[in-house]
Amino acid sequence: MIDRLMARIEALNCPVVVGLDPTIEMIPEKMLAECTKSFGETPEAAAFSLLKFNRQVIDAVADIVPAVKPQIAMYERYGLDGIRAYIMTVEYAMGRGLIVIGDVKRGDIGSTARAYAAHICPQPLFGHKFEIWNEDAITVNPYMGGDSITPFLDVLKERDKMIFALVKTSNPGSADIQDLTVEAERGEEGVPLYERVAALVAGWGAGEGLTGERGYSKVGAVAGATHPEAGARLRALMPHTFFLVPGYGAQGAGAADVAKFFDADGRGCLVNSSRGIIAAWQKENKGAGHVGRCAREAAIRMRDEITAALGA
Amino acid sequence: MIDRLMARIEALNCPVVVGLDPTIEMIPEKMLAECTKSFGETPEAAAFSLLKFNRQVIDAVADIVPAVKPQIAMYERYGLDGIRAYIMTVEYAMGRGLIVIGDVKRGDIGSTARAYAAHICPQPLFGHKFEIWNEDAITVNPYMGGDSITPFLDVLKERDKMIFALVKTSNPGSADIQDLTVEAERGEEGVPLYERVAALVAGWGAGEGLTGERGYSKVGAVAGATHPEAGARLRALMPHTFFLVPGYGAQGAGAADVAKFFDADGRGCLVNSSRGIIAAWQKENKGAGHVGRCAREAAIRMRDEITAALGA
Repeated sequence: MIDRLMARIEALNCPVVVGLDPTIEMIPEKMLAECTKSFGETPEAAAFSLLKFNRQVIDAVADIVPAVKPQIAMYERYGLDGIRAYIMTVEYAMGRGLIVIGDVKRGDIGSTARAYAAHICPQPLFGHKFEIWNEDAITVNPYMGGDSITPFLDVLKERDKMIFALVKTSNPGSADIQDLTVEAERGEEGVPLYERVAALVAGWGAGEGLTGERGYSKVGAVAGATHPEAGARLRALMPHTFFLVPGYGAQGAGAADVAKFFDADGRGCLVNSSRGIIAAWQKENKGAGHVGRCAREAAIRMRDEITAALGA
Repeated sequence: MIDRLMARIEALNCPVVVGLDPTIEMIPEKMLAECTKSFGETPEAAAFSLLKFNRQVIDAVADIVPAVKPQIAMYERYGLDGIRAYIMTVEYAMGRGLIVIGDVKRGDIGSTARAYAAHICPQPLFGHKFEIWNEDAITVNPYMGGDSITPFLDVLKERDKMIFALVKTSNPGSADIQDLTVEAERGEEGVPLYERVAALVAGWGAGEGLTGERGYSKVGAVAGATHPEAGARLRALMPHTFFLVPGYGAQGAGAADVAKFFDADGRGCLVNSSRGIIAAWQKENKGAGHVGRCAREAAIRMRDEITAALGA
């Protein structure tokens, strides 16, 4: 997956991932009305409207961006119907040739993490194997430590998949825990916790069979664009770790900020924007027919801003 | 929820929560055969067998334990069918009068956490409100900080629900991050990270409208029974925080260990056992008819061990 992802970014000259985090408020009235006509005023209608909306976005960006990142919470909120819309979004995006990063942020003790690994590996049942979720990659939460990550590493050694572990997240509250100063070993200065987490994540990703042909690991890291100084530091600390960088646009970061997360060759990083792209149609507010066009224009603008900032 | 939970624990004199974390390997052959007969050799059959199994356990323990804790990963691994089995397990347990703690360990930025809050609050849609998940409580991961927790606190202020935030987890790998020494403020000694997280969690739980009539907060903490020394320390640091304590039995902790997590009155704590109770039938291996009886016997044994250790 890491080589496939990097090749696709290079081919398109576009390190942009579109976050598929729709809310019901983002759905054009006409599209929502079609869904309630079919399914009534129900969670099923809401969930189906998210899928319908995603399809328009996906169709509009599939030839210009390498990947999409559906945020499972936006679907999970509608229960079974929502989860169905999530799975169908994943399938639809893959069918359009996109790489799909499931933003699930799962994390639990080893035996439980093996169950969550179903997101990226088939489940053995009755002598068969069933691909249940089938994302190309997922995000994971590392707070529970190495043995909560090992089951995912075991999968990555066998399969063309990736994980992205949270290191320094884009939200203001990330400071509460991630920025706490951890005492140094061997008389060095104390460092923020996220740097220690970074070292752990880099270590997990350095295991045998986890590095791709271009020198980057299948174990990536989530690092928020809203903390550019942390980005520069993490890039130096984790030379073989690919970054998934949320926080562009709606959360406040710009192209100069995210440039710090790339390596000297302008690689090693995928920048996410969700609302800034998928809700772009609301700025013009011309209705359901313009969701795709506006998303495409916003994605192109973002691509051009970032490639310009990278001097590419 | 916190008062309801404490009242129920007292009425039953039983601070035990049964972890509903079944795997396909735990399902008696005959039960599994019935499911494959109805649904074929499919994930649907696997998921339904988990539900069927859970019903036997729930029926057998509903009058002796206050709560059950289904681990969503065990269901999520089977996709939509699995999620349906999870939701039906929650409903079934509630119908039998049990309090249900959804072990989902979710955590994300504020806008996303609001979506995850659907687990404990109804979703507004088309002018109606839909109860989608309806657990009594869920577990949450605090790594992303205060603003990732706020949306849950907003729900707790309005509703009879709880959350349990991870502080010190039961797995060996919890040391990797949670035990890192964080520099102290004002010239004090450095403390393990989990103590700082404990202080944050206690602070979140001290907000207006979050404390129950018995002095405990609706914001609980997860603290692993496998770290009894941490338990004693956390009990002292967090006098108003109710503990959800995993790690009993299969993970290695005993009654003397968990006693340290209770307050001086023998309250403030709920101890989880999963495999030790639900897979107890496999020790006798007499088959499908004995799942419930063995679970009940194991739960009673655990209850008696803990109440004896508490000197109750």
